[in-house]
Amino acid sequence: MSHARSEYEDFKTLAPDVYDLVLALGQAAAKAGMDKHLLELVKLRASQINGCAFCVQHHILLSERLGVPADKLNLVVVWREAPLFSARERAALAWTEALTLLPDGVSDDVYAEASAHFSEQELTYLTSAVASINVWNRFGAAYRWTPAERPKKADAAA
Amino acid sequence: MSHARSEYEDFKTLAPDVYDLVLALGQAAAKAGMDKHLLELVKLRASQINGCAFCVQHHILLSERLGVPADKLNLVVVWREAPLFSARERAALAWTEALTLLPDGVSDDVYAEASAHFSEQELTYLTSAVASINVWNRFGAAYRWTPAERPKKADAAA
Amino acid sequence: MSHARSEYEDFKTLAPDVYDLVLALGQAAAKAGMDKHLLELVKLRASQINGCAFCVQHHILLSERLGVPADKLNLVVVWREAPLFSARERAALAWTEALTLLPDGVSDDVYAEASAHFSEQELTYLTSAVASINVWNRFGAAYRWTPAERPKKADAAA
Amino acid sequence: MSHARSEYEDFKTLAPDVYDLVLALGQAAAKAGMDKHLLELVKLRASQINGCAFCVQHHILLSERLGVPADKLNLVVVWREAPLFSARERAALAWTEALTLLPDGVSDDVYAEASAHFSEQELTYLTSAVASINVWNRFGAAYRWTPAERPKKADAAA
Amino acid sequence: MSHARSEYEDFKTLAPDVYDLVLALGQAAAKAGMDKHLLELVKLRASQINGCAFCVQHHILLSERLGVPADKLNLVVVWREAPLFSARERAALAWTEALTLLPDGVSDDVYAEASAHFSEQELTYLTSAVASINVWNRFGAAYRWTPAERPKKADAAA
Amino acid sequence: MSHARSEYEDFKTLAPDVYDLVLALGQAAAKAGMDKHLLELVKLRASQINGCAFCVQHHILLSERLGVPADKLNLVVVWREAPLFSARERAALAWTEALTLLPDGVSDDVYAEASAHFSEQELTYLTSAVASINVWNRFGAAYRWTPAERPKKADAAA
Repeated sequence: MSHARSEYEDFKTLAPDVYDLVLALGQAAAKAGMDKHLLELVKLRASQINGCAFCVQHHILLSERLGVPADKLNLVVVWREAPLFSARERAALAWTEALTLLPDGVSDDVYAEASAHFSEQELTYLTSAVASINVWNRFGAAYRWTPAERPKKADAAA
Repeated sequence: MSHARSEYEDFKTLAPDVYDLVLALGQAAAKAGMDKHLLELVKLRASQINGCAFCVQHHILLSERLGVPADKLNLVVVWREAPLFSARERAALAWTEALTLLPDGVSDDVYAEASAHFSEQELTYLTSAVASINVWNRFGAAYRWTPAERPKKADAAA
Repeated sequence: MSHARSEYEDFKTLAPDVYDLVLALGQAAAKAGMDKHLLELVKLRASQINGCAFCVQHHILLSERLGVPADKLNLVVVWREAPLFSARERAALAWTEALTLLPDGVSDDVYAEASAHFSEQELTYLTSAVASINVWNRFGAAYRWTPAERPKKADAAA
Repeated sequence: MSHARSEYEDFKTLAPDVYDLVLALGQAAAKAGMDKHLLELVKLRASQINGCAFCVQHHILLSERLGVPADKLNLVVVWREAPLFSARERAALAWTEALTLLPDGVSDDVYAEASAHFSEQELTYLTSAVASINVWNRFGAAYRWTPAERPKKADAAA
Repeated sequence: MSHARSEYEDFKTLAPDVYDLVLALGQAAAKAGMDKHLLELVKLRASQINGCAFCVQHHILLSERLGVPADKLNLVVVWREAPLFSARERAALAWTEALTLLPDGVSDDVYAEASAHFSEQELTYLTSAVASINVWNRFGAAYRWTPAERPKKADAAA
Repeated sequence: MSHARSEYEDFKTLAPDVYDLVLALGQAAAKAGMDKHLLELVKLRASQINGCAFCVQHHILLSERLGVPADKLNLVVVWREAPLFSARERAALAWTEALTLLPDGVSDDVYAEASAHFSEQELTYLTSAVASINVWNRFGAAYRWTPAERPKKADAAA
C-alpha cells in the first residue's frame, strides 16, 4: 500500500519559490534568538494536532539531536496535565494550540499568559514559528508525505 | 473600547523579515498564474472560518476592485448550498476548508475532486495560497487587527 | 446539475397554512417596532450558521434595499472580531448565535448582556425573530432552495 | 435557588401575537393528519438535544396521555441503537436530528430515507413540526422555563 | 433486520473472567454504601451520552424497581436545565458527564463542586461507578446489544 | 504549584477493592494471550486522547521495557497518517479510538475492519483492554495524578 499522495521532494520540484519561502519562514524564530527546545515542542504539538506524520517524525528526530528531554517529547501531547512543563512553556503551548485550532478563537486569558512570558517581539516570532509549522502541516497532511526513516545508530567501531 | 491587541503595522515593525516572507508567500500563487478571482474566494472563505476580521475586510475590498461578482462574495460563506459556484470553484473551496480545518483531515474525496480540477503544480500553488491566508489569519485573529476602513468613493467633481 | 431538492414555491403550495404562519412569525418583531437593520443582521448571521443559501441571499438583498451598510453585511460573519458593531448589536448577535447553536446552551453571560440592552418585551420579540429565521433556515437548507437572482439594476433611461 | 429566567406564562403576556402563531405552528402537522405518536417522539427528541427541560416534561406528559409506549419514550434518546423503532420512525428521527443540528447540514442519505417514508406533503408537515418544536425549545431553553409538575393521579374514590 | 453485532450473553461466554470483573466493578459503589438512586441516575445519564440502548433500558428498568421518581428518569437527559435535581445530584451528574466526555477534561469547577458534596472516599467510589458504566457502555454500544424486553406486569389474579 | 488533585497511591488506599478489580481488568487481555506490543499501543493512544499524563508516561515506560519500537511510540498519535503501522494494528487503533470517543458511535466500517483482523474472542479481550485503560484514564485525568519519574539508567558498575 502506497500511503502518500505525493512526497516532500515533489513540493520542492513543483513550486521551488514557495518551498524556499516556507523554509525561510520556519527558520525566522530561531534566527531571532528564540529557544530551540521551546520551538521544537511547539512544532511537535502543532503537528500532532494537525495530523502530519511527516512533521511529527521530523521534529522528533530534530528534537532528539538537540537534546530535548525524552519525557517532554512523550508528554507534550498531554502537556496541560503534565507538571514537568514550565510556566513559560505552558504559555507557549497554549498560544500554539489556540493558533492551531484557530476557528475557536484566541481568548484573552491565553493572550495575557503569552504576553506575561514573552516580549512583544518574542511573541511575534513565536507566532511565526506556529504559523510556519501550520504551513508545513498543511502540505504534509494534505499530501500525506511519508515520514523519514529514523537514521541507523553509528557503528560502534566507527 | 480598543478592540485590537496590536495592529498590522506593528507586525511589520516587530519582525520585518517575517513580514516580507509572508507577503511573498501570499503572492506566489498569483505569480504562478492562478486565477485571481478564485484566489480571493479561497482567501475570503478561510478568513471567515478563522475569524479574522482584518483579513475578511481586506479580501472583500480587494475582490471588489478585481470585479469578483457580489453574489459570490455574499454566498461563499454557504458555498456548498449555493449553485452559482462552478465545479472548479467548489473543488478549490472544499480543498480550502479541509486545509483550514486541518485537524479533521483531508479526505480522499476532497483530494480526488481537487486533483480532477487542478494540475499537480496548480494544486501546489493553490495550497500555498490557502497556507498563506492561514498564516495571515493567525496573525490577524490572534492580535485582533482592526479592519481597514472602506475607502470613500471618489468625489463626483473629480 | 439541479441543486435544489424542492423550491420555496413548493412550500407555499404543499402547506399553505404553515407558510402563512411562518411568514407572520417572521414579521412580528418588526411590527412590534424592533429596528429593521438589527433584525436583518441577526437573520443574516443565523442563515450563515445554518447554511441556508436561499436565506443568505434573501436577507442580503433585503438589507441592501434597507440601506444596511456594506461593511456590516460583510463583517457580520466575524462580528466578534469586528469593532464596527455596537454593544447593542453585539448583544443581539451573541443571543442569536447562542439560540441558533442551541444544543450548546445559553450562558448567563449571554443572557445578562442581552438583558442589559433589551427590555423584556424587546428580547421576546428579538427571540421570535431568531426563532423565525431558524424556521426558514430549516426549510431552506433541508430542501436546498435555490437563492433568488439579484435583480438587474433599473435602466438609467427608465 | 430560582432556576428560571422567566416563565412560559410571561411569553404569553409579553408577546401574545407571537405566542398564538407558535401555538398554531405546533398544531399544523397534527391537523394535517400526521400520526400523533410519531410527532411526540420527534418533539421529545428535539427537546432533549436542545436542552429544554420544560419541553421534555411537556411532551413526556402529553405522550403518556396519548399512550405512546414507555419503552419508546425511554429509548428515543438512543434511538439509533434501539431496534424497537420502525423504519418510518427512524427516518423521521434522523430528519429531526439533522434539522435540529442544522449547522451540520442535511445529507442526501437522510433526505432519501425521509422521502422514502413520507410523501412530499407529509415531509413538509413533519418539517413544520420539527421547526415548531425548535421554536419552543429556543424560548424554553433560553429562558429556562420551569417544567410543569406531574399531575397527581386521580383519587381512587373519584 | 438483526440490529445487534453480538449479545450480552456472548460477552459472558467469550470472556467470563472479564465479565466477572466488570460485574464486580459495577457493584463496588453500592457495596461501599453509596445511594442507589443516585447511582442509577449517574449510570442512566452516561448510557444516554454513550449511546448504549441496552444499558439505558437496563438502568431504566432497575430504577423503576428501586423507586426512582419518573420525573428524574425523564429529565436526567436535560438535568442542567431541570430544577428538580438536588445540588448533590447535580455535582454527581456534572462529574459523570465530565468523566464520560473525558477528552474535554475535568475542570476545577466540576472537581470543586464534586468535592464539596462527596468525601474523598465517596468520590472515589462514585468515580468507580462512572468508570464501570463506561465499561458496560463500551461493550453494549460497540456490539449493539439488544435492549431487554420490559417484563410483563404480574397478573392481577396471581 | 501542586498539580495533582490526588495521587495513584490514594486510589489504592481509599478503595482497595476497586483498585484490585481495575488492575485485574487491565491484565485480562495479556493473560488471554493478546500481543503485548499491540496492547501498549492501544493503551498509549487512548491515554493521549483522554489526556491522562500519568497513563501516557506509564505506558511509554512500559513500552520501552517491552521493546516497542520508538517510531511506533512517537507516531501512534498520528497513526492514521503513518504507514509504519500494520493493517492489524490500524484495525485495533481504529477500534480503540471509536470506543474511546464513544459518544460518536462505532461505525460498521470500524467493526468490519476489527472483525477481519481479530477473532470474536480476541476482539472481546481487546475491548476489555480499551475499556480498562479508559477506566484508568478516568481516574488519572480526573485526579491529575502525577506522572512517574523516568527511572535513572542503572549504574555501569552495578
